[in-house]
Amino acid sequence: MSRNFIRSLKTTTMTLSNKPKIVANKYFAQSTGKDVWTLTNDSAAAAAGNSQNKGREMLNLGQGFFSYSPPDFAIKEAKDALDIALVNQYSPTRGRPSLIKSLIDFYKPIYNTELKPGNVSVFTGANEAILSCLTGLLNQGDEVIVFEPFFDQYIPNIEMVGGKVVYVPINPPKALDERVTKGTEWEIDWDILEKSINSKTKAVILNTPHNPIGKVFTREELQRLGDLCVKHNIIIISDEVYEHLYFTDSFTRIATLSPEIGQLTLSVGSAGKSFAATGWRIGWIVSLNEELLGYAAKAHTRICFTSPSPLQEAVANGLADAGKINYFPNMREQYIRKYEIFTKVFDELNLPYTAAEGSYFMLANFSKVKIPEDYKYPEELLDKGKDFRISYWLMNELGVVAIPPTEFYIKEHEKSAENLLRFALCKDDEYLEKTVERLRLLKNYL
Amino acid sequence: MSRNFIRSLKTTTMTLSNKPKIVANKYFAQSTGKDVWTLTNDSAAAAAGNSQNKGREMLNLGQGFFSYSPPDFAIKEAKDALDIALVNQYSPTRGRPSLIKSLIDFYKPIYNTELKPGNVSVFTGANEAILSCLTGLLNQGDEVIVFEPFFDQYIPNIEMVGGKVVYVPINPPKALDERVTKGTEWEIDWDILEKSINSKTKAVILNTPHNPIGKVFTREELQRLGDLCVKHNIIIISDEVYEHLYFTDSFTRIATLSPEIGQLTLSVGSAGKSFAATGWRIGWIVSLNEELLGYAAKAHTRICFTSPSPLQEAVANGLADAGKINYFPNMREQYIRKYEIFTKVFDELNLPYTAAEGSYFMLANFSKVKIPEDYKYPEELLDKGKDFRISYWLMNELGVVAIPPTEFYIKEHEKSAENLLRFALCKDDEYLEKTVERLRLLKNYL
Repeated sequence: MSRNFIRSLKTTTMTLSNKPKIVANKYFAQSTGKDVWTLTNDSAAAAAGNSQNKGREMLNLGQGFFSYSPPDFAIKEAKDALDIALVNQYSPTRGRPSLIKSLIDFYKPIYNTELKPGNVSVFTGANEAILSCLTGLLNQGDEVIVFEPFFDQYIPNIEMVGGKVVYVPINPPKALDERVTKGTEWEIDWDILEKSINSKTKAVILNTPHNPIGKVFTREELQRLGDLCVKHNIIIISDEVYEHLYFTDSFTRIATLSPEIGQLTLSVGSAGKSFAATGWRIGWIVSLNEELLGYAAKAHTRICFTSPSPLQEAVANGLADAGKINYFPNMREQYIRKYEIFTKVFDELNLPYTAAEGSYFMLANFSKVKIPEDYKYPEELLDKGKDFRISYWLMNELGVVAIPPTEFYIKEHEKSAENLLRFALCKDDEYLEKTVERLRLLKNYL
Repeated sequence: MSRNFIRSLKTTTMTLSNKPKIVANKYFAQSTGKDVWTLTNDSAAAAAGNSQNKGREMLNLGQGFFSYSPPDFAIKEAKDALDIALVNQYSPTRGRPSLIKSLIDFYKPIYNTELKPGNVSVFTGANEAILSCLTGLLNQGDEVIVFEPFFDQYIPNIEMVGGKVVYVPINPPKALDERVTKGTEWEIDWDILEKSINSKTKAVILNTPHNPIGKVFTREELQRLGDLCVKHNIIIISDEVYEHLYFTDSFTRIATLSPEIGQLTLSVGSAGKSFAATGWRIGWIVSLNEELLGYAAKAHTRICFTSPSPLQEAVANGLADAGKINYFPNMREQYIRKYEIFTKVFDELNLPYTAAEGSYFMLANFSKVKIPEDYKYPEELLDKGKDFRISYWLMNELGVVAIPPTEFYIKEHEKSAENLLRFALCKDDEYLEKTVERLRLLKNYL
């Protein structure tokens, strides 16, 4: 989706006999082409059958789902929850009291203040949480600032409810094609940001740790952004779904930087990311501003009514269990190890990448990889960024699947990312080792 | 919600220091008062502590959740699903292939035609399914016909996406206050319906078996409605979540009445209702028109992205299990028995009710019950229908909770239902027997 979704002007209508036409919602009736997920999955399925990939496993580091199970304690809590009759029925729309309590217990030391039940609300995944913020808060024509590269789902979520997206780049380091860079070297374009703010600016969506860069915003960056939002009264939707996956010394949450920033911030968390359970669809928002959160919760009541009860209960108890066994710090250690495994091959081949400070993604740079100029691509890739062709080549020649990140840019800015591919490292170590072994074949193309 | 939600003009704004105000979305910022669910639950909690109810259990037949567990086979399928690593991860946005297949197998004989995967799509509960239809199909100002009484959630779901609700009454039988009536005696006001149709009429929402009436629309009624929709090219969103709970000889689905009607219909089903699991949040839509369904599915991708995977898998396998053990016909038998248990007391006391032909609700008529004229009610009930006061009296004097159905009407039409209360019978038999015993105390007020 994103640019193709927005740009196309072709509108589909349904003709049913000779009656007046039924015209679907204009937003959804635009002919959008395939989104990056469908395109990549379809291409990968086709690539699996080619002669190069015959007899070898396709190694898919595309979509960010875990290749392994949620931890045993979380599975056990989910099974136990299913055994309680009423835990299979509707939960309160704001969330099960058990989960609200666990979230308060979890976030109280982080926010360093008493949290009330009104400071927390449960949603049907972080995606629906963000949509609920936008639905509950935006009015027609309100502007929302989104940093590029962005998680693709933000864009339709803003536009569906009548908001206007304003794009502000996170500029890549100049040495991107030359050496291993750091997430901190990707910097918000503060000039463009300041110039983008006007009286219609209602909210900004921040994502830290950042998908796909792997950047963890520093305290200084967040303070500067937060102060700007306080100055202009801009709501901060802080997508912190990778909150447990930071490899820096600490992870700063913008809501904690000052009481004024806290009053403007809605911080989004995800059980899917925290417990390796992207299919559970449990997310939440913490906010020091109960009124602001109340609007998101009201919207949620109308969007999903309530969230899956047994999985809410599992997360409630799982959060308590996690604390006892040091689950989250251990997970961080595991992910530091995964990055060590995976970056090895890029270091060996002297291929640049952005060393992630957080998330489970890595952007690798393919500018030094020599892809034959006469390589044949399907027509649907020809108007897309160069990275779409690199991705296609990689899955067809090496059987490794990665996501082209220009999908997370508007057309004008996609040059920044045209040599990059995003790899999702949320796979078991053995799978990563196999992928590394396969990627060693890149040496034939340097 | 409903009328209070819509009528109130008071808009809330958030003042944060002396900055420009943040104005929440106008729809959600309206001061709405409490919805019927919150009001009833809060009143019931207070009533539990009064002197009348001291030492006795509150018997809650208010909200339509099951007092008992989903069937063992469904719980087992959910637990087994949790044991598979990838069943805890994202499912395809249209639904897990296993569930799509089970739904096709289930509905194929009903629709008496081959169904393709594109004829079925999975949603995060029937509520999100209906919202997805409206989001995917409505344009600003499009009108949607809703029959009164209506399920309250329809109204914000239409209005949130810019649609206009057009209310058409289902007229109650004239003898409503006098004798036991039948669901079929409640009739669509066809005159008003025909007059309500204009060039902006985009869709109609039908609900059969009907909440709260318990009416199962007859083939003749559905044919007449369907033909009207074909004539004017109106989309039919057929909310069939109580599809397994009909006590008539057969249940007619409007989509099956003619190919032309089928091409206009989106039929909504619910695992929550089918498997006594309202907290699982798995719903689906079947449509013979793949293109129409495609728009709902596109909207769903942006609203929830995907639905809970282990619970989808449980429903996929549960549907297959159910067929083998005659689960749905057995459930119907159980519900016929529940109605027999529950109507006993009304028959004994000669209190009229509408004998349900389907759903798990029953409307009982309290016009013959003499409530002291000087009974004291909280202020928040004084501008509401008389049934809100009957409900309040009943929970405080008898400790029995039921829902006032004028919440499902606009103010102008609520007189039809002012003597009625809605009881949810989705409780175990023992609980219903206890409630019947308690309701026998009504004889002191006749």
